[in-house]
Amino acid sequence: MKYYRTAVMLLLFIGSSGAVRAQAKKISATKNAVIKFAEQRQQELINLSDEIWAHAETALKETKSSKALADYAEAKGFRVTRGVSNMPTAFVAEFGEGKPIIGIMGEYDALPGISQQTTPTKAALKPGAGGHGCGHNLFGVGSLGAAIAIKELLQQGKLKGTIRFYGTPAEEAVGGKVYMARDGLFNDLDVCLDWHPDVEIAANTQSSQAMIDFTVTFTGKAAHAAADPWNGKSALDGLELFLHGVNMLREHVRPSVRMHYVIQSGGDVPNVVPEYAKVWMWVRDSKRDGVEQVFLRVREIANGAGMMAGVESTVTVQTGDYELLVNLKGAEALQKNLEILGPIVYTAEEISFAKKIQEESEVPQTGLNGAIHPLKPTRKDPDNGSTDVGDVSWVVPEISLVVTTAPIEAPWHSWAVVACGGMSIGHKGMIYATKALAMTMVDLFEQEQLRKNIRSEFEERRAGHVLKPYIPDGPPPIPAE
Amino acid sequence: MKYYRTAVMLLLFIGSSGAVRAQAKKISATKNAVIKFAEQRQQELINLSDEIWAHAETALKETKSSKALADYAEAKGFRVTRGVSNMPTAFVAEFGEGKPIIGIMGEYDALPGISQQTTPTKAALKPGAGGHGCGHNLFGVGSLGAAIAIKELLQQGKLKGTIRFYGTPAEEAVGGKVYMARDGLFNDLDVCLDWHPDVEIAANTQSSQAMIDFTVTFTGKAAHAAADPWNGKSALDGLELFLHGVNMLREHVRPSVRMHYVIQSGGDVPNVVPEYAKVWMWVRDSKRDGVEQVFLRVREIANGAGMMAGVESTVTVQTGDYELLVNLKGAEALQKNLEILGPIVYTAEEISFAKKIQEESEVPQTGLNGAIHPLKPTRKDPDNGSTDVGDVSWVVPEISLVVTTAPIEAPWHSWAVVACGGMSIGHKGMIYATKALAMTMVDLFEQEQLRKNIRSEFEERRAGHVLKPYIPDGPPPIPAE
Amino acid sequence: MKYYRTAVMLLLFIGSSGAVRAQAKKISATKNAVIKFAEQRQQELINLSDEIWAHAETALKETKSSKALADYAEAKGFRVTRGVSNMPTAFVAEFGEGKPIIGIMGEYDALPGISQQTTPTKAALKPGAGGHGCGHNLFGVGSLGAAIAIKELLQQGKLKGTIRFYGTPAEEAVGGKVYMARDGLFNDLDVCLDWHPDVEIAANTQSSQAMIDFTVTFTGKAAHAAADPWNGKSALDGLELFLHGVNMLREHVRPSVRMHYVIQSGGDVPNVVPEYAKVWMWVRDSKRDGVEQVFLRVREIANGAGMMAGVESTVTVQTGDYELLVNLKGAEALQKNLEILGPIVYTAEEISFAKKIQEESEVPQTGLNGAIHPLKPTRKDPDNGSTDVGDVSWVVPEISLVVTTAPIEAPWHSWAVVACGGMSIGHKGMIYATKALAMTMVDLFEQEQLRKNIRSEFEERRAGHVLKPYIPDGPPPIPAE
Amino acid sequence: MKYYRTAVMLLLFIGSSGAVRAQAKKISATKNAVIKFAEQRQQELINLSDEIWAHAETALKETKSSKALADYAEAKGFRVTRGVSNMPTAFVAEFGEGKPIIGIMGEYDALPGISQQTTPTKAALKPGAGGHGCGHNLFGVGSLGAAIAIKELLQQGKLKGTIRFYGTPAEEAVGGKVYMARDGLFNDLDVCLDWHPDVEIAANTQSSQAMIDFTVTFTGKAAHAAADPWNGKSALDGLELFLHGVNMLREHVRPSVRMHYVIQSGGDVPNVVPEYAKVWMWVRDSKRDGVEQVFLRVREIANGAGMMAGVESTVTVQTGDYELLVNLKGAEALQKNLEILGPIVYTAEEISFAKKIQEESEVPQTGLNGAIHPLKPTRKDPDNGSTDVGDVSWVVPEISLVVTTAPIEAPWHSWAVVACGGMSIGHKGMIYATKALAMTMVDLFEQEQLRKNIRSEFEERRAGHVLKPYIPDGPPPIPAE
Repeated sequence: MKYYRTAVMLLLFIGSSGAVRAQAKKISATKNAVIKFAEQRQQELINLSDEIWAHAETALKETKSSKALADYAEAKGFRVTRGVSNMPTAFVAEFGEGKPIIGIMGEYDALPGISQQTTPTKAALKPGAGGHGCGHNLFGVGSLGAAIAIKELLQQGKLKGTIRFYGTPAEEAVGGKVYMARDGLFNDLDVCLDWHPDVEIAANTQSSQAMIDFTVTFTGKAAHAAADPWNGKSALDGLELFLHGVNMLREHVRPSVRMHYVIQSGGDVPNVVPEYAKVWMWVRDSKRDGVEQVFLRVREIANGAGMMAGVESTVTVQTGDYELLVNLKGAEALQKNLEILGPIVYTAEEISFAKKIQEESEVPQTGLNGAIHPLKPTRKDPDNGSTDVGDVSWVVPEISLVVTTAPIEAPWHSWAVVACGGMSIGHKGMIYATKALAMTMVDLFEQEQLRKNIRSEFEERRAGHVLKPYIPDGPPPIPAE
Repeated sequence: MKYYRTAVMLLLFIGSSGAVRAQAKKISATKNAVIKFAEQRQQELINLSDEIWAHAETALKETKSSKALADYAEAKGFRVTRGVSNMPTAFVAEFGEGKPIIGIMGEYDALPGISQQTTPTKAALKPGAGGHGCGHNLFGVGSLGAAIAIKELLQQGKLKGTIRFYGTPAEEAVGGKVYMARDGLFNDLDVCLDWHPDVEIAANTQSSQAMIDFTVTFTGKAAHAAADPWNGKSALDGLELFLHGVNMLREHVRPSVRMHYVIQSGGDVPNVVPEYAKVWMWVRDSKRDGVEQVFLRVREIANGAGMMAGVESTVTVQTGDYELLVNLKGAEALQKNLEILGPIVYTAEEISFAKKIQEESEVPQTGLNGAIHPLKPTRKDPDNGSTDVGDVSWVVPEISLVVTTAPIEAPWHSWAVVACGGMSIGHKGMIYATKALAMTMVDLFEQEQLRKNIRSEFEERRAGHVLKPYIPDGPPPIPAE
Repeated sequence: MKYYRTAVMLLLFIGSSGAVRAQAKKISATKNAVIKFAEQRQQELINLSDEIWAHAETALKETKSSKALADYAEAKGFRVTRGVSNMPTAFVAEFGEGKPIIGIMGEYDALPGISQQTTPTKAALKPGAGGHGCGHNLFGVGSLGAAIAIKELLQQGKLKGTIRFYGTPAEEAVGGKVYMARDGLFNDLDVCLDWHPDVEIAANTQSSQAMIDFTVTFTGKAAHAAADPWNGKSALDGLELFLHGVNMLREHVRPSVRMHYVIQSGGDVPNVVPEYAKVWMWVRDSKRDGVEQVFLRVREIANGAGMMAGVESTVTVQTGDYELLVNLKGAEALQKNLEILGPIVYTAEEISFAKKIQEESEVPQTGLNGAIHPLKPTRKDPDNGSTDVGDVSWVVPEISLVVTTAPIEAPWHSWAVVACGGMSIGHKGMIYATKALAMTMVDLFEQEQLRKNIRSEFEERRAGHVLKPYIPDGPPPIPAE
Repeated sequence: MKYYRTAVMLLLFIGSSGAVRAQAKKISATKNAVIKFAEQRQQELINLSDEIWAHAETALKETKSSKALADYAEAKGFRVTRGVSNMPTAFVAEFGEGKPIIGIMGEYDALPGISQQTTPTKAALKPGAGGHGCGHNLFGVGSLGAAIAIKELLQQGKLKGTIRFYGTPAEEAVGGKVYMARDGLFNDLDVCLDWHPDVEIAANTQSSQAMIDFTVTFTGKAAHAAADPWNGKSALDGLELFLHGVNMLREHVRPSVRMHYVIQSGGDVPNVVPEYAKVWMWVRDSKRDGVEQVFLRVREIANGAGMMAGVESTVTVQTGDYELLVNLKGAEALQKNLEILGPIVYTAEEISFAKKIQEESEVPQTGLNGAIHPLKPTRKDPDNGSTDVGDVSWVVPEISLVVTTAPIEAPWHSWAVVACGGMSIGHKGMIYATKALAMTMVDLFEQEQLRKNIRSEFEERRAGHVLKPYIPDGPPPIPAE
């Protein structure tokens, strides 16, 4: 997930979760099979996760990580197509045939500059290198594990249809799923699933923010800043006016809107009137409609600022996300399986590890939240975060899970999350996700009515909207080595 | 003069001025006649000046002042045309016929809110009323006195041609001369003269600044500022951005440019997103070309600011002045007459009055500057002031005089200048001006070659430029009573 | 109410309201008495309301309106104290003695510049004069009517205790209640009530926004804007920077915050560097704590802006409101009486009048909402409006009613509300308020337990907070005639 | 010179310069000796210049260039002290003993990124490498050549005293001379000389601008820009407000002031409220007093901006230059020698090379200006450029020469100047400078009265001012390899 999720703590449920487990209803043979599969292959999956954790490759450079996952899937008998959507590190792995087709997504890109050992205090593994500060090593493997568990049942003839795993790169940057969704790779699915590492366990019922990621550049005319500044047109003047305009716009947008920016280029040396200046900016709102209205105003502000400073302004959209289209029918099916599985139970060592991280991070030392709480009602405005799962959710019904892999209030995208993702706290969450996702896929394969209900809710929510992603034609720019 | 003149003090000349007078060359009979005339009619002219000083009527409301001057001219035998250029308080008074036609201008508008008695400490005559803080009571009468002196000689057949006095209202506001010049009232003149009260005596060799006076209004859409500000478009946002842009432009204009503004309207109550906002602004530079370039940029800034705030912007030119076209040949002729007249000599009482004013005004107590100094070279950039004489100087060669009527460094446009203009310091300066202007007009009537030289310098300087004043069609708006 | 209330339309209840009335429970004799009283004195009350509607006096100048109400109360036997809290138009009218003491408030100030006839199209009664665009003519009389109805019962010995009417001026400006609350005038009350004209009928369960009303002035040093601007310190520069800072602060306040301002003084003439500039600003948030935090930042912004421009900045608090402390126990008691009274039923003429107003106001022609809907849950953040009832609600439990007196979505503070307040739509709402308030007061006098429950909720909510209003010592400045 | 000199073209003198030469007065034997020396050693000096031209080492990294010059001086018999003022590439080379002591300075640092061949069209020698776009290869060698010429005469006993060459690095960056002047290295000199490549030949009579080079950093508090921006304090807000304040200050500084800046750091990613931001800025004025007054205001603006944004601001002075203290007596002595030498005469090939460069640079194809024009009067405000020679000129009388080494209006600090500095146009200028400087030093050694006159003008001008340079204690930061 690009931006951390505000942890909603429901510690009161921890105590009662043992009881939930105790009263667990009878579980079907097929669900029992996927749970058993996850437990038997646990070490194999953990090894694969640790390998990707160690690679810690950043967006669109996940060459080894992508290959490890694709090779593993191939070894398990999946048909693998690599380099889909013109991204070398994107792939699709498929098993079985015919309908229904159930998809599941996995991410594996790391974040730059936060290399960390599996210790509860900050200590770089390779100084300057990347780290899995968003837990995508667990995400990719956990999802693939669930896909393989389903494959076993398909192979054994206990389920019928197709399972398809999507290796989706660059979630932290351009958003690989946005390109894959644009290219129609999800179109024939009945339902798609994903999960994400988090500080709690929940069947997601909340949307995410729609957003647009863009730059504004200004191009003027250089001049000697002391000798003849009147012959110059300052690109930086344009930029400063643009930002003033954006800050004024804040009064005139709804409270759910967020606009934030950095200055990427603001002149070279004081002695020259700057002929080039650049802002990198994001606009977000609860819905794409809202974000588009604001973006239109921002475009006008850029035009106006250029005119004021007598310079050229150019707005370039880099990428964007749709808000996540929630599917409550899907979430309810997932929630039932969470309640069957019950809470995650942590050892004293794990709790102590978590508290040490919390101490270092200067947040309350409340340990880990392994509880299952009841399905939450969908809020009008989502928490402030965006994800490229949003685009997928507008072409296929999407079921999203979050599972605890880090301490309560752990600072996301930091060494703290990297540390947990390489040891048992992360591993436990991943195996739990494998089970919950596979169980829910069993339901989806087995229950036509469930698929119909999910689809019908989906169609009602998207109301005929056709995906128009915020990306340029062609593939994303692949970063140079 | 709209804006005070920076006093350049040349006290060193004061001592020698007696000597200058002593060595005065033989004066022609005609010049002697105008000098004598001014001395004989001195009290009559002073009475008229004091009457206008007491009226203290502001721009375009100078009804009594204008009438007093026009009646006086008429009584002296001039043909008077009142209400020229559709301004009720503008008039032309003419005597004689045929060429040459020599013009001379007089102003008589006061400034609001600076009523003052003839005392050297601040004391309002009528609290809240206007006052002659720019000495225009002296200006109008001094010029008319010179015109009448010439009329005497024309009547006596000692000179040949036409003398024409221009009663030019509203110098402190819209600039009556701008309208009169546009309407061609000066077109048939050979030469025009004017003078202005000051803190020194000089044949003017400096230009003045070209300027444009305009407003920028912004019109948006009101909304409840707390309940739904996102439905409003703030005119005030547009205004604030406009001003930011103007302040950035300062880096990119030549050092001779001046831009200054006030906010005339910035919203009614905080609870409503302002739908209207207004700036009043002046742009100046040494030449009209420069001011036009800057004004073009300011227009773009207004457009851009409107676009940024999503509101309408409207730039409305109110008036403007050309820079004064200096005429050195004319100034040299005038300078010779100043040197004949010699310095103004003040009494101990006058000097003490002046020093008291300086004490009250917190400037050095250096008294009065009655000296004549040599002609100054024309500077590349003028002092920072503008005058509607500028427009006249582009249709006819213009000779400008300044004469001391107030203490050195007296704050212009203040009670201090009002006080002096109603007592002997002002009176002395006025009668001095009457003499110097009349003597110079004698030269102009008598010397065809001088007129030719002046005209030829004029034509070279204006280089075929055709006057395009910065005023709307029709007369200026006459202020309501 | 200072700022209009967002109308929440619940038209679906209109149909069922007849049924509600039909099933009306038995009504006690005392309640029946006050209902009957209101109906019998209806014309008298309407006449008084129409008189105040015609006076249309603005804040702290409500001399005739205040006198009319106080005289009426006196005539009915109340002990009247005029000029309380050093405000000539504030008064208290009391009847009875001993505990309990129940208070009820009435407003009577009009808004400037919206004079209007009782026609459904815009037509000034006296052009330029004020108008009751917030329905305070109804507010004052409706409340006093209820107080008199209670007085009858006290006089008849059917109730025991004291009824006290507060004549509270200047709600639209400084907030008379803020001064009266500060001065302890409400301290000995058991409960206080008020109502307000609106576009729906409801026992209020929502808070209002806390706010601070203040000015920021900047004082610099004048200089000639063309000749020596480097000797000036522009107060306007300080103001512009202050506003830029405020607009940047918007990113760093919670979404519930509102900040809005107008420029009241921005320089006199372009030719002078402005030495004085002034902003009038309001800051609001859901709670006083929030508003104080923002205000602290705004003070720093003013300081910093002054320092940047080299000028003095002064922040002057004018007034402020606490958020309303909701009392659900009180609202429930009121709601029961509303349900007993049932909806307001309008005639075809009234509905047509309302629709014409809606047509002229360019809002949907949905007529009038006379329905009673169930008590609404209290929202976390209130609608965006503030009231000086807020301060009262922190010293005594407060019960607030709103009653329909204008069409759905009628633009508040406009001619439309003035028109309705002078004819039967307004009158009906007022008499309805008289009944509902009197009935609820009957409950309060009769039920000690209800008073205890209300008090106990109040004490829990205010949690020991001691009122510190945002006003200077002494009385508010009384506007000159 | 840090910033190019505005070329004043006096082509009219070119034609007459032959005449000047023809009528050359008798030249003394000692002057003849230094002229002859320069002609004899011409090739040796050109080779050394070309070597340094090829090294093209940038500020404080001029290791090879500095060594080449120091080694050459040592080889010629000078006592060389390397690494003076703790700068590895600064050195002093001395010959002779006792008084008078005459100093002469040489620079040798190149500019980054403008590598160029000796061709009249743009063509990098080593792409990305530095180039001598300010002609410092010529500057260093030309000065050293003159010092050696003097050494010959001292060695031969024809002059008496000490000659001292200063190898002054980093003129284009921190200003090596500022450190050397602070450390007293020039204190015992009688007179110091320098020259600079230019587009004309002149004994300099103009000052340069005083300036301060500083950074302003802002430090706030990071927060998630979408989830809780209200917990962040944006350093970038502080920076934007600072710049707004600076742009407003422009109205309130004298027209001779220049302020210019770039943004060096403006946040990392849009998703985080920036906790760090940095501006790099220069302030200049005609005199140090003026620049200090402006700098005081800028400090206040930084403080105020920090306060407004709730962040810390830090102003760090990096370096600064005094304005050059002109010495007219010295300039007159130099001028006489220029008139003896007469103009530089160019070949058709050189003129054609120059015109090609002008064509490529889109300036008029006016060729080269080799003329000597009469000494210019000192202007009140200098051209807009600063130099670290300024600091030296406040501790010792300074004589400055400029000599043509590039075409008229050639864009300084560009490939065009690099190209000319490596071929005969540059070489000719350098040898000319060697002659003129050595001749003037002959005068200084021989004429005690000239030295006295120069010193006495110097003392009058500096009026007891004690140098306080704008640099931190200790040496400048040496850039890493």
